[in-house]
Amino acid sequence: MGVGHHEAAWRHPRTDQSRLFDVDHFVELGRIAERGRLNSIFLADTLAVGPNVARNTQSIFEPLTLLSAVAAATSHVGLIATASTSYNNPYSLARAFASLEHISGGRAGWNIVTSAQLDESRNFGGSDTPAHADRYARAEEFVDVVTALWHSWDADAVKVDAESAIFADPTGVHTIDHEGKFFKVRGPLNSPRSPQGRPVLVQAGSSDAGKELAARVAEVVFTAQRSIPDGLEFYTDLKARAVRHGRRPEDIQILPGIVPYIADTEEKAIALEQEFTDLISPDYALRQLSAFFGQDLSDLSLDDRLPELPPESAIEGQKSRSTLVRKLAEESDLTIRELLGRLGGGRGHRSIAGTPEQIADDLIAWFEAGAADGFNIMPPYLPGGLEEFVDHVVPILQRRGVFREEYEATTLSGIYGLTSHDAPAGAPVEAISR
Amino acid sequence: MGVGHHEAAWRHPRTDQSRLFDVDHFVELGRIAERGRLNSIFLADTLAVGPNVARNTQSIFEPLTLLSAVAAATSHVGLIATASTSYNNPYSLARAFASLEHISGGRAGWNIVTSAQLDESRNFGGSDTPAHADRYARAEEFVDVVTALWHSWDADAVKVDAESAIFADPTGVHTIDHEGKFFKVRGPLNSPRSPQGRPVLVQAGSSDAGKELAARVAEVVFTAQRSIPDGLEFYTDLKARAVRHGRRPEDIQILPGIVPYIADTEEKAIALEQEFTDLISPDYALRQLSAFFGQDLSDLSLDDRLPELPPESAIEGQKSRSTLVRKLAEESDLTIRELLGRLGGGRGHRSIAGTPEQIADDLIAWFEAGAADGFNIMPPYLPGGLEEFVDHVVPILQRRGVFREEYEATTLSGIYGLTSHDAPAGAPVEAISR
Repeated sequence: MGVGHHEAAWRHPRTDQSRLFDVDHFVELGRIAERGRLNSIFLADTLAVGPNVARNTQSIFEPLTLLSAVAAATSHVGLIATASTSYNNPYSLARAFASLEHISGGRAGWNIVTSAQLDESRNFGGSDTPAHADRYARAEEFVDVVTALWHSWDADAVKVDAESAIFADPTGVHTIDHEGKFFKVRGPLNSPRSPQGRPVLVQAGSSDAGKELAARVAEVVFTAQRSIPDGLEFYTDLKARAVRHGRRPEDIQILPGIVPYIADTEEKAIALEQEFTDLISPDYALRQLSAFFGQDLSDLSLDDRLPELPPESAIEGQKSRSTLVRKLAEESDLTIRELLGRLGGGRGHRSIAGTPEQIADDLIAWFEAGAADGFNIMPPYLPGGLEEFVDHVVPILQRRGVFREEYEATTLSGIYGLTSHDAPAGAPVEAISR
Repeated sequence: MGVGHHEAAWRHPRTDQSRLFDVDHFVELGRIAERGRLNSIFLADTLAVGPNVARNTQSIFEPLTLLSAVAAATSHVGLIATASTSYNNPYSLARAFASLEHISGGRAGWNIVTSAQLDESRNFGGSDTPAHADRYARAEEFVDVVTALWHSWDADAVKVDAESAIFADPTGVHTIDHEGKFFKVRGPLNSPRSPQGRPVLVQAGSSDAGKELAARVAEVVFTAQRSIPDGLEFYTDLKARAVRHGRRPEDIQILPGIVPYIADTEEKAIALEQEFTDLISPDYALRQLSAFFGQDLSDLSLDDRLPELPPESAIEGQKSRSTLVRKLAEESDLTIRELLGRLGGGRGHRSIAGTPEQIADDLIAWFEAGAADGFNIMPPYLPGGLEEFVDHVVPILQRRGVFREEYEATTLSGIYGLTSHDAPAGAPVEAISR
């Protein structure tokens, strides 16, 4: 996320704004993550400049191209790109991810999103906010089509036998002949089976339809949870749903987001968080809040409380995020100003300010309570906030025996320990006979 | 093109087939091109595995992702990606190219194709070969939409003023509000103006509709021409068409393709070409021939002549390439076997076998006759064939004063000397005020 997950990160002296445009900045983030033996880096994305172009620093690079560049300069860390099922076609997206797979040697992940915003719809021929149910119906079929395309080459179809002029065994390459409600695709994919078969499937929708999609297909789930009881409820619910879809609980890994403010004393960490809160632009934050609820809240007074708003079932925007925001405002009786401060760091994700030990204790508490399989670390500023985490928190987690010392796999599914991921015996390049 | 432009390159001992899957192979090609001060590298693409999967080695990587990886490992050479106007949407493609622009610092080019094959149509919901006229009508509108999106951010719109919390000046970022026959797109693009404003536009269609599109929008044209008179006719025609579209002749640069077989004697070069010809698989080549004419020719006997075939006007496949192939067969009274041999190296492009001096003489003769502004070098095998050209032919061209010794520009449009390319004063990053 540019120079940090906090929306005002680019205004803080700990960031260098010119790096927003610098591909080497993202290469550096990948290398720092790799130094910390983190599973992956993850790029969010939206398909519109958004309502407040004056302050939107987020979408300069497109994830698949940017992560291809990062792939060339890293060797182990996973590369998770966000891409929309509403505004892509399955063949092209399957191909692009297969390409990232081949470029990275099997380190690709796909964060499946359905693109809720009206501004996005208008860039792709639409006039209205697309209905939530329609987006998810298309997403379900989309995932099935791309998965079939990724499996349209058998793992051993590539022969590369120069003597007999056989590149691939045609009996191992299959049309998919899909004809559904949204798509008609013949196949096969024009790229051989990739090193891990297909990217790791990632999802973050927390609405009922979002959780059902995740339960059926996702292997990694990003989620915003603000307390261990809430996290535990989500975790238990989603694992149970996965089991109902015939999967094992360990086939779907749940990673709440955290925004860590790290310093050598708790006081300094709290002061650091306050510096970022003080940089929030209320009008930008109000527009973000509007997007959660799918309606214009930009005229709210900062000293008022959140007004009466439609129930989650009536919201075509970010359903579950709107509920989280509403709950946060009500439980702590926050003014709009206070609410925006709490949201500024992670757009609803949980912030922690503390020493490296305190951060490590917090993560371990969630893990041991059964509310998380891991975490999506969202540093408020980059690359500094990621370096703080990798250099000071990770060693504590390693000493306590809850995090790896070295990578023990070369593919992203291997790093996540996804034993049910359909990996071929070896990368195509290893199957080559001369 | 994988391990070489000759269709049987992967079967020749001068290639290493494992590199078909190796991103470092393509990085190496970029670096060799850069060592030779070549303008750019260019990746062709089709959106289907093609009729003969057993021998199709071409489409493992997708061009935009692969060239993003190459961008990160090179500094000057241009990066031209093929992408289809028939099976992409304008917003996503404009964004992906803007991203490659930012990743490469302004070295992107877009080879505009309309995707003629039935197999491609079937991967995107179609059942028939799309009509030639419809493809070009959509392409014309597509190019206009993406161009408007690339210009939706003024060159000086990005401010990045942390003090006043202004990332961009909203008055410099514009919706495009396009509503046409094929597309409805609001904009603006979700990526700021790129280093050279937009990619260099490349085109290779040689049908009448293809030439009209090129004359209106292309800055670089790839073409298959087999003799100086033919090349001169094409060159003169296309420049005149460009002038009729209100452009200057130098705004559109014409680059015939050549397939060079290089050795220290002419005899050795001819023997090398013969080695490749001997590796051609007739049934694979017949399927390629079928694609040119848009009909099944796979049952032809290799010792016969080309049968009576429909005129170019009735062909929905590769119109102009079919005419070139027909002319080649008739003028030299070739059997199908001989014709396939001539086509194997460059699918219709001209082969030259000779010493470095002979190759250089040939290129200079075309250039001085006014039949070419430059050439698309299509080495039969890679990387070796490119190294031969860069290390042995380029120095002769430099000594004779017809090719640069050093890069004198950092953007691709600058390298091509396209003074009419709408470049902003500088890359956005240079416009940043702290």
